[in-house]
Amino acid sequence: MSNIKSIKPQTLKGFRDFLPTEARKRQYVISTLKQVFESYGFEPLETPALEYEEVLLGKYGDEGDKLMYRFEDKGKRKVALRYDQTVPLARVVAQYQNQLPIPFKRYQIQNVWRADNTQKGRYREFLQCDADIVGSSSPLADAEAIAVVAKSVEALGFKKFKILINDRAVFRSWQLKLELPDEKATLLVRTIDKIKKVGKTQVKELSIKGGFTPEQIERVFEEIDKSQPTENIKEIFSVLKNYGISQQFFGYSPYLARGLDYYTGLIFEIEIEGYSAGSVCGGGRYDKLIGMFARSASSGKAGKQIPAVGFAFGFDRLIEAMTELKLFPDDLQSTKVLVTIFSPELKDKSLTYSMSLRSAGVSTELYLDENAKMEKQLKYADKKGIPYTIIIGPKELAKNLITLRNMKTRKQKTQSLEEVQKKLFNYSF
Amino acid sequence: MSNIKSIKPQTLKGFRDFLPTEARKRQYVISTLKQVFESYGFEPLETPALEYEEVLLGKYGDEGDKLMYRFEDKGKRKVALRYDQTVPLARVVAQYQNQLPIPFKRYQIQNVWRADNTQKGRYREFLQCDADIVGSSSPLADAEAIAVVAKSVEALGFKKFKILINDRAVFRSWQLKLELPDEKATLLVRTIDKIKKVGKTQVKELSIKGGFTPEQIERVFEEIDKSQPTENIKEIFSVLKNYGISQQFFGYSPYLARGLDYYTGLIFEIEIEGYSAGSVCGGGRYDKLIGMFARSASSGKAGKQIPAVGFAFGFDRLIEAMTELKLFPDDLQSTKVLVTIFSPELKDKSLTYSMSLRSAGVSTELYLDENAKMEKQLKYADKKGIPYTIIIGPKELAKNLITLRNMKTRKQKTQSLEEVQKKLFNYSF
Repeated sequence: MSNIKSIKPQTLKGFRDFLPTEARKRQYVISTLKQVFESYGFEPLETPALEYEEVLLGKYGDEGDKLMYRFEDKGKRKVALRYDQTVPLARVVAQYQNQLPIPFKRYQIQNVWRADNTQKGRYREFLQCDADIVGSSSPLADAEAIAVVAKSVEALGFKKFKILINDRAVFRSWQLKLELPDEKATLLVRTIDKIKKVGKTQVKELSIKGGFTPEQIERVFEEIDKSQPTENIKEIFSVLKNYGISQQFFGYSPYLARGLDYYTGLIFEIEIEGYSAGSVCGGGRYDKLIGMFARSASSGKAGKQIPAVGFAFGFDRLIEAMTELKLFPDDLQSTKVLVTIFSPELKDKSLTYSMSLRSAGVSTELYLDENAKMEKQLKYADKKGIPYTIIIGPKELAKNLITLRNMKTRKQKTQSLEEVQKKLFNYSF
Repeated sequence: MSNIKSIKPQTLKGFRDFLPTEARKRQYVISTLKQVFESYGFEPLETPALEYEEVLLGKYGDEGDKLMYRFEDKGKRKVALRYDQTVPLARVVAQYQNQLPIPFKRYQIQNVWRADNTQKGRYREFLQCDADIVGSSSPLADAEAIAVVAKSVEALGFKKFKILINDRAVFRSWQLKLELPDEKATLLVRTIDKIKKVGKTQVKELSIKGGFTPEQIERVFEEIDKSQPTENIKEIFSVLKNYGISQQFFGYSPYLARGLDYYTGLIFEIEIEGYSAGSVCGGGRYDKLIGMFARSASSGKAGKQIPAVGFAFGFDRLIEAMTELKLFPDDLQSTKVLVTIFSPELKDKSLTYSMSLRSAGVSTELYLDENAKMEKQLKYADKKGIPYTIIIGPKELAKNLITLRNMKTRKQKTQSLEEVQKKLFNYSF
C-alpha cells in the first residue's frame, strides 16, 4: 500500500458522492419514472460507459468534442466516456438491427460525463433519463412521448405544469417566406430559443448583432405571432385528448425553439409552476439522427433515415424542483424500527425479535453492539431517521412485553409483541 | 457531423450492451437484493465513476495498478475509474466522518472498470454489489453479514447452497506453530485457497515449488485438519442459529482461505449446488482497511483502525447461476398486453381503451402505427414477449365487445371490456 499520509479524502470537482439521504431520493425518482415508462411498454437498455472514440466524436458539435472525456486505453484504443444516451442508442439500433422489435421503445437511465465549467453550477457526472420510440413516424408516437412525460411528472407529485408544444415546420415556413439559408435560420432559431429567459427585445438585439436586419426580426416575430398549429400538432393534440390528458397540461407554444439542431418535427418542453431554474424535461422528433450508423439495404451506405421521437428528463433539476416544492414523501427511510440491545445477556432476545419482525415484513434494524449504552443506540436511530425503536429489558421480559418508542414524539409504551407487530406493519410513511 | 461512413457500430472488447431481455434480468436481481439489504437497515451509497488517481493507486497491489483505467483530464488532473467499491467507501468514511451514523451500514451497486484479459472470459466493465457494516467489531455484525447473504440467495430462489465459514485466526495459529514469517504465510494461504479447484496434491506441489518443504505442508494440512472453530466463529454460529438460519446453509470450512490479503478475522464464501463456475458471493472482516484515509483523533495521523465486515456478490456469476438453474421468473416482461389498431379510422377506440387499461393498473402498450397490418402487430407482440393482444375491429365494436388473444396458446375470445380488464388484472406472470 502506498504512503497515504498525504492523501486528502476528496472528490473531483463536478463529481459527487450521494450519501444515503440523497441516494434514496434518487432511487425514489428513478423507480417512479421506470414504473411509468414500463406501463407504456418502454423497455430498459444499458450501454457501456466507454465507447470507441470514433462512435461519439463529431456527433455533438465542437463544444461536445471539447467537453468529452477521451483517452487512450492500454491497448492504444482511443476511447471516450458516454456523453449522452442518444448516440449510443443510434449505435445499438445499427448493431442489433434484426434483433430489435420495431418500433423499439427503450428507456435508459445512466450517467454521462462532460468536462463542463463547474462555475456555472454544472456537474461533470450526471444522470440522464431518456425514453425514445425508434421506428415510428406516426403522430401516435409523438403524442405518446408527451403523454408519458405528463404521467411521469404527475406520478412524481407535480400538480401544476404545462407542456409547451411546437413544430419545427413552423420555423421552416417563415424560413421559406423570408428566404433565409439554413445556417442563418438555425442561428436565428437558437437566438429565439432564449426568449423565455431574456425577452423579445433582447433577442432582437442579439439577432441584429448576429447579422439580421431589424425588419427581418420583426417579420419573424410577426410570422410566429400569427402562426397556427400545424396539421401534425393538431393531430397530436387530438390524440392527447383521447389519452385523457387534461388540456390545462399542454398547449401550442410557437416561440418554443429548443437549442438542439437535430429536431425535425415536434418539439416540446415542460414548465413547472413554482420552479423557474429551467425545464426539467424536453424532447421532440428527430428523424435524421438514429439511422446514422445503420446501412441502407438498397445502397449499402451508412446513414439510413430512421424516424424517432423521445424526451430526456434533467435528473438533477427534477430532484431540485421536487425538493423545492416539497414533493418527496416525508420519510424515504425504509427501515421502520431499530431493535436496541438492553445488555449483552439479553442480546438473544433482541436478535430473535428482530428476525420475527422481518419475517412479518417489517424492515428492521438490529443495533450491532451489545455493549453500547441505550442513549447511544437511540441517538443512532435518530441520526438515521428511523421512526421507531424497540427496547427489550428485564422489566419487559418479566411481563412478556416489549417497549415501543416513537422517535418523533419521544413517547413510549410497553405492550405485547403482537400489538407492536401490528402497529409497525400498518404504519405507513 | 464527422464522416461516419467508415464507423463500425461496435462495443469495446470486454464491454457490453444489455438489451431489454438481459437488462430486465439485471434489474430483477438488483431490486431483489436491495429489498433484502434494506430490510436489515442497509442504506444506499453512490460514489463517482472518476476519482483522483492517488485515492485508488497502490490500494490493490501491483496487479490492480496495472489493470486500472487511468488518464489525465483536461485540467491535467490524474484521474482513475472506479476499480472497486471498498476504497471509495474508505474515502467516504474519512470525508464525512461526522455526518455518518456509526455503525455505517451501506450497500453500493455500481459498475467498476478493470482492463483485464478478456480471453479469460473477464469483463472490463462489470457491476459490483457490496454491502458492508463499518464501525462495529461485534460478532453480531459478522453474523448479520452472513445472514443477509443467506436471505439474499434465498430471495433469488436458490434452494441448495452452503456458506463456508472460516477465521483468519486459524491460519495465524499454525503460522505461529510453524514459525513462518508473514510473507511466507501469506503465500501459503494463497496457495491453499486453490484447494477446492485443484486438490490437495496439486497444492502441495505448488507449495514445494514456492519454497516450502513437504514436511511443512504436511504439518499445515495436519493442523488444519484437526483445527476447531475459534471462539469467534462459535459465537457467530450461535447468533446465526438465533437468526433462524438453518444449519444446512452454513458450516465451518477450515481450508477456506480467500485470496485477498486484507481480511483480519471472519472469512466466508457461498457455494451453490449445481453451479461450479465459482463462488457467487464472498466476504469477511477487514479491520485494517476502511480507516486508511481517516485521521486518528489522538495522533492526527492518517490510518485509523476502523472495524468493518461485509461481502460482495459477483453479479455476472449470479446472473449466470440463476440462468443455469432457471431461477428467473418465466416472464420478466412487465407489459401485459398490446392493444393493436385495426384500421386508421378505429385508432381512437384502441387509444381510449389502452388508457383505461393503464388506469386500471395494467401495463399496456398501444401499437404505434395505425397503418400496420394486423399480422405485423401480432409479430411485434411475440418479439417483445407480450403475453396478450387486444383486437378492436368493426365486428367487435358492433357488439360492444373486444377480442383478447393469448399469444402463447394462439387462442382468442371476444368478450366484454370488463371481462378482459378483470382477466388482465388478475393475470400474474
